[in-house]
Amino acid sequence: MSESTVIDQLLAELGTGIVQLPSEFGTRQLHDWSGVPGETPVALIRPRTTEDVATALRICHAHAQPVVTQGGLTGLVGGANALGGEVALSLERMNRIVEIDRTSATMTVEAGVPLQAVQEAALDAGFYFPLDLGARGSCTIGGNLATNAGGNRVIKYGMMRDQVLGLEAVFANGEVASGMHKMIKNNSGYDLRHLLIGSEGTLGVITRAVLRLRPRPTAVATAWCALPDYDAVTTLLTCAQAELPAGVSAFEVMWAGYYDAVLANLPELRAPVGGRYPYYVLLESVGSDAGPHAAMFEAFLGRMLEEGVVVDAALAQSEADAIAFWTIRDAPGEYQKFIPHHSAFDVSFSISDVGEVAARCERGLLEKWPDALVMIYGHLGDGNLHIVVDIPGTEGRLHDEIDRVVYEVTQEFHGSVSAEHGIGVKKKAFLGHTRTRIEIAAMHQIKAALDPRGILNPGKIF
Amino acid sequence: MSESTVIDQLLAELGTGIVQLPSEFGTRQLHDWSGVPGETPVALIRPRTTEDVATALRICHAHAQPVVTQGGLTGLVGGANALGGEVALSLERMNRIVEIDRTSATMTVEAGVPLQAVQEAALDAGFYFPLDLGARGSCTIGGNLATNAGGNRVIKYGMMRDQVLGLEAVFANGEVASGMHKMIKNNSGYDLRHLLIGSEGTLGVITRAVLRLRPRPTAVATAWCALPDYDAVTTLLTCAQAELPAGVSAFEVMWAGYYDAVLANLPELRAPVGGRYPYYVLLESVGSDAGPHAAMFEAFLGRMLEEGVVVDAALAQSEADAIAFWTIRDAPGEYQKFIPHHSAFDVSFSISDVGEVAARCERGLLEKWPDALVMIYGHLGDGNLHIVVDIPGTEGRLHDEIDRVVYEVTQEFHGSVSAEHGIGVKKKAFLGHTRTRIEIAAMHQIKAALDPRGILNPGKIF
Repeated sequence: MSESTVIDQLLAELGTGIVQLPSEFGTRQLHDWSGVPGETPVALIRPRTTEDVATALRICHAHAQPVVTQGGLTGLVGGANALGGEVALSLERMNRIVEIDRTSATMTVEAGVPLQAVQEAALDAGFYFPLDLGARGSCTIGGNLATNAGGNRVIKYGMMRDQVLGLEAVFANGEVASGMHKMIKNNSGYDLRHLLIGSEGTLGVITRAVLRLRPRPTAVATAWCALPDYDAVTTLLTCAQAELPAGVSAFEVMWAGYYDAVLANLPELRAPVGGRYPYYVLLESVGSDAGPHAAMFEAFLGRMLEEGVVVDAALAQSEADAIAFWTIRDAPGEYQKFIPHHSAFDVSFSISDVGEVAARCERGLLEKWPDALVMIYGHLGDGNLHIVVDIPGTEGRLHDEIDRVVYEVTQEFHGSVSAEHGIGVKKKAFLGHTRTRIEIAAMHQIKAALDPRGILNPGKIF
Repeated sequence: MSESTVIDQLLAELGTGIVQLPSEFGTRQLHDWSGVPGETPVALIRPRTTEDVATALRICHAHAQPVVTQGGLTGLVGGANALGGEVALSLERMNRIVEIDRTSATMTVEAGVPLQAVQEAALDAGFYFPLDLGARGSCTIGGNLATNAGGNRVIKYGMMRDQVLGLEAVFANGEVASGMHKMIKNNSGYDLRHLLIGSEGTLGVITRAVLRLRPRPTAVATAWCALPDYDAVTTLLTCAQAELPAGVSAFEVMWAGYYDAVLANLPELRAPVGGRYPYYVLLESVGSDAGPHAAMFEAFLGRMLEEGVVVDAALAQSEADAIAFWTIRDAPGEYQKFIPHHSAFDVSFSISDVGEVAARCERGLLEKWPDALVMIYGHLGDGNLHIVVDIPGTEGRLHDEIDRVVYEVTQEFHGSVSAEHGIGVKKKAFLGHTRTRIEIAAMHQIKAALDPRGILNPGKIF
């Protein structure tokens, strides 16, 4: 069937209020934040209900029409970009918070609701929704689910998949799989929820979710620590996890090269401690009962200083102090100002390998490009490293070569080429560095079983 | 091909040390703890390595020979029973702890290692493996994975799937899918790990796993609480989760009928508080730094008593006290003594529905059978109820009718017919009470994709 027939039928069943042609959606943003260019979709569908999504997919399935589902378009791997010939399905209108159940500590939402709206509604109800990332104002719960988003507090609360009790999704043929349960435990057959989460829109379109809320922390303790060597970093992590009564909510490590570069290039940043050290850690613990919480955190930090695990430290005395520490950790948002053509990596490893991996990547890059700027930082508690590389004067022309250096080390250490961003199109070539041939074959078999015509987000992941 | 040809080939490639015929394995236990009878398998394979498992499945796949995988045979739904004509694959010899990585806080094990061996090895290494259930001495990690086992401390640490970073499994055709990673974050394609966990041996044979270890708690505070009504129970849960600095590690609710019956029938039990109340809660919080931990727990309990949420309470002053409280909660292990023909349920719900569900089940059962003994207890923090029913003089003849009463209420409240035990054969008829037709169809499609000849544990789940 021709494209126009599909679009005629979509228009006939859904109407012009829901289906728009390129001439109508005009200058709308069509690609994510990855820098991967996006094509203009043949039509844009903006459903209001799950039934609209089901109708759209039923028609597209009948015509073998490819569909790319879009949320906030804040992804970093091109997963939500149209590649050419797709209908785009934007869930932006399905943005309602349906219910907050205080006894069950759950929030039922449509997929298009922005993450920040969920965080704020949870706080208003006396709860906490722990997933957090820089794109919170624009990214949507549907996109967080499709990519299994991570962020800063995974060490305590887990990733997006750990925040979900129930899901509703529409399969490629338009059938609605409803599993909108509020149960924490449910061992009744295969866990389709975990299969859909992180499948980047290739197995179904997630339309609604039951999210799990957590008790709202009422106390937060934050410290900036300077450490003498990498062993001290892992010792601090192990001790903090074992000894801080409320556990660790963030353990962000910054290598000296990162710290030096951001302080040198972003004049608004203030150094929390004097002197220079090989490693810095932003340590945070959230809990309840502020008085004892702060006292126990300070006592722990004192022990670490006495034992020489930490050689200098600054304890946040106010929220402003804590924000100042986090601003150093969040400086990557400002890179564009001084290294607009940098390469960025989101890789993960066994925690015991992270120190050596970082050293190997740095050495490998500097051997090839002695003037390279290499900035390394990450969520050590999760084994997740972010590596930013810029080679002055090359203006991004060496991206592929830089990729090869970092991903070869990743493969050698059995790491993941994507800790939290997904594969999309940007990392497709490197999927085999992390997953085996047999695992990838199984993914193909599952894809063919659930989407036999291959209409859902074709060309992504594999 | 005939059975004897398959077995000849298994014997030829694996040898008599690994493949045994019924005449050789003799009086071996052949069924799980469910009471569902098991058939004698046509052969018993006891592999020593993943390669042995791969060889066995390759041969069985070629001959379309059904295979049932067995661990400790402690399941409660007949999931590991042979139904007739299967080869049994027991992983009992693959019981090694391969490695403990202290920096990454991981333990790498073979699937046949008993849960208790993992718990003990973790403690010896200064860590904690939090999954715990009554069958710990006999059940194996492979069985815990196949059924996504739960237990007492899910409220703090999650279920079995939350304790696993990497898996190795053999697919039906004998291909080995190796994902033995130690990464906490890995968003590289579909999460096959979560699909295999809880699939009850129908999608692959799990041979090894990388388990996540937790910091060893060094302090434990336990209280026995009496409560005036169900609202007080949910209030205590919400407050304990928000206010106890280390959170809640167990929140076990017992309805009056449960408490009265076990105290009347098991003379070795001692009542922790005087008087009778509608609800009892065993509240536990594990943490570090015993002094402040105990003080904050006691202060919390004091507030709950002042506010009338708790009307009487006993705080464990010693490990012996705590054990005495847990003995009342663990009395189900002793039911056989006084109600050998009881029906038992493992159902879950939205936490906000649990009170009404329990009342509805009790009323429904007593309307039909006025002299029924109905005992209700459960892990409220997980929405998980256990219901035990005995109708004097019927000697188990009414099991099916009792099932219908409880599972109809379960369906009406969108609950799960299996919170933590799995479906196996015992709950197959009720899978559709929890999962929709479209979800079950998707399970069939996935099963057909990964096991096209249907050799893995046929007749289970659906």
